[in-house]
Parts: sequence; structure tokens; C-alpha cells
Amino acid sequence: MSTATPLSGKELAAAIRTSAADRAAHLTAAGRTPKLTVVTATDDPSSAWYVRSIAKAATKAGIVCDIADLRPDSTPDAIRATLEKLSADDGVHGIILQTPLPAGAALEDLASAIAFAKDVDGANPLSLGRLAAGLPAFAPATAQAVVALLDHHGVELAGRHVTVIGRSNVVGKPAAHLLLARNATVTVCHSRTADLSAITSRADIVVAAVGRAGLVTAEHVRPGAVVIDVGTNPTEDGGLTGDVDAASVTPLAAALTPVPGGVGPVTTALLLDHTVRAASEEATTPS
Amino acid sequence: MSTATPLSGKELAAAIRTSAADRAAHLTAAGRTPKLTVVTATDDPSSAWYVRSIAKAATKAGIVCDIADLRPDSTPDAIRATLEKLSADDGVHGIILQTPLPAGAALEDLASAIAFAKDVDGANPLSLGRLAAGLPAFAPATAQAVVALLDHHGVELAGRHVTVIGRSNVVGKPAAHLLLARNATVTVCHSRTADLSAITSRADIVVAAVGRAGLVTAEHVRPGAVVIDVGTNPTEDGGLTGDVDAASVTPLAAALTPVPGGVGPVTTALLLDHTVRAASEEATTPS
Repeated sequence: MSTATPLSGKELAAAIRTSAADRAAHLTAAGRTPKLTVVTATDDPSSAWYVRSIAKAATKAGIVCDIADLRPDSTPDAIRATLEKLSADDGVHGIILQTPLPAGAALEDLASAIAFAKDVDGANPLSLGRLAAGLPAFAPATAQAVVALLDHHGVELAGRHVTVIGRSNVVGKPAAHLLLARNATVTVCHSRTADLSAITSRADIVVAAVGRAGLVTAEHVRPGAVVIDVGTNPTEDGGLTGDVDAASVTPLAAALTPVPGGVGPVTTALLLDHTVRAASEEATTPS
Repeated sequence: MSTATPLSGKELAAAIRTSAADRAAHLTAAGRTPKLTVVTATDDPSSAWYVRSIAKAATKAGIVCDIADLRPDSTPDAIRATLEKLSADDGVHGIILQTPLPAGAALEDLASAIAFAKDVDGANPLSLGRLAAGLPAFAPATAQAVVALLDHHGVELAGRHVTVIGRSNVVGKPAAHLLLARNATVTVCHSRTADLSAITSRADIVVAAVGRAGLVTAEHVRPGAVVIDVGTNPTEDGGLTGDVDAASVTPLAAALTPVPGGVGPVTTALLLDHTVRAASEEATTPS
């Protein structure tokens, strides 16, 4: 019986981090140490864990990472004011607005206040629009990680049928545009899709980005398909599990990303890469 | 043998035009006659025909329509300068940049110079990004006309599978987002799609937006599907023909938009509606 090749993200992430660290060192030598500021307004523990992991990776790569820790009861106006202040601060090169946000605050609305040139996680609708239109912009790191991981493992995209499960502004939609730009035929499914498994099981490549542990099972995947698991759902024992039920999908998929160790590390590495690019004032196109 | 119901756009277009004319009259009475400026830099005859038809419809609705006719050898910088000047002109409420553009000039790039609030044909990447993110923005009129026509004829979208053929920034991509926002499952196909008919013939609704006369034939459409023809390809005798081969599709589709008389008149009417909204400084969401 065949079994899915694990599409590890660790080697790719390491290569991206090494390159980012090299360029960060050059910038530091030139008196321009890259600086990333993560704005949080939540006491959600998995958010705190994620922010700490970004900060740790940034520090190791020679990037300064500040956390602007607003209170979970912050108003949208207060968050917007912080984003505007950071956008105007010449010492800050990259800005991330971490979710979840307080009730009444919408990421896509507030992210408009992140200066386009510093929008290293592609949250500003202008970034999404430029990405969709094929113009230079930072892609949301998670969406870009999906494509980067497929490239790294030599998975052909042109002419292949990719089904993206999930239509979020930070993963599903930008991933669909990046895949379209690579000449894939793209289907976007979501919570209101009728007969999900009938649709996903026709795809050459399935990208699961819904945030529900184990949603994608054998019935959703055709034999020989490549499956990318974007999910990072917390488990009861403090670990992470994906959107894909690996036990049922592994025996029939050609390849599957592990969780953890697949999309996640590539995402973090790309945030560092974007921050260094922002500090270099490089125009950037999503790779 | 059954035959496809023709999904005429004429009645819907007339209703939109009447409403726009009513509101334009109120604005004029208040000393704020809506004004649309169409920027052209081409001597393409079908473009000239289209611009004349917009101007005629605008005038009938009580909207002033100016043509800023730049020469076909205009540089991108000259076109951008014109768009910036119009964007800053308080007397202009809506701006359209007509295609085709001179060689070296890209719509998605130049359209960034159209003020967001005056971007009545949703060409600025910020409009596309906000549309994709679910924020208020003017949708490209053609893309919105697709959804408006489906609504007008009572075609359910939620949970249905829609295949959009074509991935342009002005039709295919924004239509995909409008359809996703209405809870359709959306597949985007294009020139690099492998086995197009296998994919399109699974859809409940097919939207043809490629600009190739007669590309969509019976093999692309499943019996009972609804087919929206966005194509407006010039014929040798000076008429228009769609992307759908109506002779082969009519016997098996449940419904089909005619060309001319389907999407086209709704598109023109929506441009008038958007211009009146822009003059009213109404925040707008794509309907």
C-alpha cells in the first residue's frame, strides 16, 4: 500500500530564514536593522504562542521584533491609531496586526491603516487587490507559503486543478489568486459549498484552510492528489493539529504536508523575508 | 425538446436607468449634476462605439458625460496625469479609463491613479481588494451585471457551483469574488485550463468571459445549466456576438443571456448608477 510523501516545510523555512538573516546582517551593517512590530489586542493563548514564535525567529535572524500589546478591550479607533503611528514611524519596517481582534474590530477594515509598504502579512485590502491584479505587493505569508511549499517539492501548478477549502481574506482568497497567477485552475469551496467531497475529490491538489480539525478525510481526496494542510488547530494536550485527518488521507494521497512542520514554519520564515524586503525598500512580487 | 429561457437584461437595465435618472434629477436640483468622464487613448472602433453608447445613456439619464480623448500614442505618464487631474477635480464624480490602452500602458497600473471614490468601474486595485475583502467599493460594472442579472431572473446562487471562464481583473476575478460573497462555490478557468469542458460541464452556472466568439459550446454545458455570456465580440457585419455558441447551447441550457441585450445593457446602466452614487457620496456595497 502506498503512503503520502510528507511535504516538510522545515528545509524550505531554514533556507528562507538563512537568506533573510544574511540580508538583515547587511542592513544592520549599513545602520538599518530591520524591525517588525506585531500589534496584538487579545489574551488568546494560541495567538500569544504564535507571536512568541515569530519574535523568537526574528531575533535569531537579526530582526528586531517589538510587540505592541494593546488590551483585549481596545477600541477599533485605538488599534487604528496605533497602526497609523507605526506606519508613520521610519524606524518600523514591517507591521502585523494579530488576530483574534476585540469584538467590533474587523481585520480587513483596520488593516487599511497599515502602510502598504510595511504590510508584510498582506492584510491591507490594497495588498490583496494588487496581488489579485498581478501587481507587486506582499502576499499574506500563509497563502504564499502554500505556493512556496508546492514549488519547493516540485509540484507542477500550471494547468492543474486546485481546490482551496476556505475563503478567508488572509488565506483562501489570496492563495486562490497566487495559484491562478501560476496558471492553475482554481475552485474555492467554503462552509456553504454543497457536496464538498464531490468537488474536492476531483482536484489534483487540495488546499485545506478552514480551521476545523480533521475536516478533510479520505472521501475528500482523490487517490494520488497532493494535499496541503494550512490548519493549525490547538489540541487538548497543548499541541497543534491540521484541518486534514492525516490517518485517513495518508494512505491515498500522493503527498501531504505535516502539521506541525509543513506550512507553519514556511509562513514564519516568509514574514521575516518580507520584513527584510520592507527594510530594503525592495519592490516585491509574490514568489 | 426544451430550449433555454433567454435571460434578457433590458428590463433590469431600464429599471436601473430609471432609478439613476430620478436620483440624478434630485442631485441636479440641488446644484450637483452628476458628471462622468471617460478617458480614452485609442482609435479602436468598437471602443469608440461603446463610449458613445455610455455617453448617450448618461445624457438620457441626466448625467453629464465628458470624453477626455487622449491620442493613441499617449504615454502612460500622460494618461496617469489626466487621471490624477480628474481625480482632484471636484466637478467630476466618476472616472472610467477605457481600454484598449496604448502599448506599454497597463490598466491595473494606471487605474491606481483613479481616486477610489470616483472609481465607478472598479478598475483601481484598491477597489478590487476591498471588493474581495467584503468592504464597500464599486465593483467593475460588468462583473456586477452578471450577479444582478442572475438575481433579477431569480437564479439561486448560495451553494451552487459556478464556473467563471476568464480571469481578467475587470470581469473574471471580480465576478468570482461577488459570487463567493453570495455563497456560491466558484471555479475560475482560463486559457491554461486543462480539459475545460470537463470542468465547466459540472457547473450549475457557467459565466463566459473570455472574449472569444463561440468558445463555449454544447460540450461545455451540462443540461439544465444557466449560462451567462459576457462576451461582446465584433462580427464582420458590424454587430456583436458572444463567447457562447448560442445555437449549440440553447437546446440544452435552462437559460442563456442573449448577446446583445443581456449583460451589456445592465453594465451600462450600472455605470450610471455608480456615477450617481459617487455624486451622492454614498458609501456603496456591490449589490
